[in-house]
Amino acid sequence: MTPPPLAAQAQQPADDRRRQILSAARACFARAGFHGASMGQVCAEAQMSPGALYRYFPSKDAIIEAIAEEERAGAVACLEHLRGPGTIADRLVAMAMDYLASARDPESGGLMIEICSESLRNTAVGARFCELETLVRDRMRAAVEDARERGEVPRDLDLDIALTMIFSFGDGLMMRLQFERDVALEAIEPHLRRILRALLRMDEV
Amino acid sequence: MTPPPLAAQAQQPADDRRRQILSAARACFARAGFHGASMGQVCAEAQMSPGALYRYFPSKDAIIEAIAEEERAGAVACLEHLRGPGTIADRLVAMAMDYLASARDPESGGLMIEICSESLRNTAVGARFCELETLVRDRMRAAVEDARERGEVPRDLDLDIALTMIFSFGDGLMMRLQFERDVALEAIEPHLRRILRALLRMDEV
Repeated sequence: MTPPPLAAQAQQPADDRRRQILSAARACFARAGFHGASMGQVCAEAQMSPGALYRYFPSKDAIIEAIAEEERAGAVACLEHLRGPGTIADRLVAMAMDYLASARDPESGGLMIEICSESLRNTAVGARFCELETLVRDRMRAAVEDARERGEVPRDLDLDIALTMIFSFGDGLMMRLQFERDVALEAIEPHLRRILRALLRMDEV
Repeated sequence: MTPPPLAAQAQQPADDRRRQILSAARACFARAGFHGASMGQVCAEAQMSPGALYRYFPSKDAIIEAIAEEERAGAVACLEHLRGPGTIADRLVAMAMDYLASARDPESGGLMIEICSESLRNTAVGARFCELETLVRDRMRAAVEDARERGEVPRDLDLDIALTMIFSFGDGLMMRLQFERDVALEAIEPHLRRILRALLRMDEV
């Protein structure tokens, strides 16, 4: 077995440290909000000294930016399902199941409510996450438009209302799966498919 | 014209003052959270002196309790639609439309996210609102069970999953209608009916 190159070895602990900090920050933000949580709390949660932590992130804003970037990467990965096999409903279900699996992680799920709260209050943090939502919504809109071209959904379907309903459902499920930890994702899947087909009026074509 | 009885006259300004305080408190809580907002901020928002405000509410907890009571009364009023005419889907749509109309009010809608956040964090405030949700969920469950007895929905419908999906959708719409202020409630109604019918598998009976 060949050992990993030296550069990669040096990189590894730094990446681990970075992840450790972001994971601690997510837990703190979910608990106390982006504004309520202090850098001191993040240090305590990450079990690092302020000096060590500041070497990775010079400010709370830098941490929030890194979390937004992680969320963006996660969303882009979920969006890949829109190129998958099956009908538009199948693709959206695959995407939703991937997204909802992350809701089972208390860190991501808890943070999601804080993000909504920031967006409603129109803060800088809120605006950062609104950009991400716009990206996801534009890609989903394009996928449903394609499906309309292919005749999978009725020509007169109001895409904007349909997308608003789909996003509402996604937000709501994401939150609720945090509370109802005993609901199995597999139990939700057939309902999701039924709802998406009804929402996109797929039985009318 | 007979003037209102003296007792009612004396009562009126006190009720107005109470409402004024609760309305100011809702705005403050929606902005800064139940914990973040101070009694001083509520006084400033209500344009009242602390002395005057404390005559109505001795503590922030007393204000939160009064808001929870208002929410309970609003929920009970919405639940009346479950006794209304039509199928179970019609009744649930009527209930949802009434509930969502209140989401258009920034005070109630903004507060809803704070309530979710408290529930996730398992605080005393969160527990107070969880009780309310249990009340609503029990009544909705009974209404869907009745519909199952009447043969409106399939006998093998999993009521718990269906209710989880309905609540998710309600939460999500409530939040999203806060952001998307240009979406008309009337545009949502036919989609809601379609989704509820699909979710309750009403076309399978």
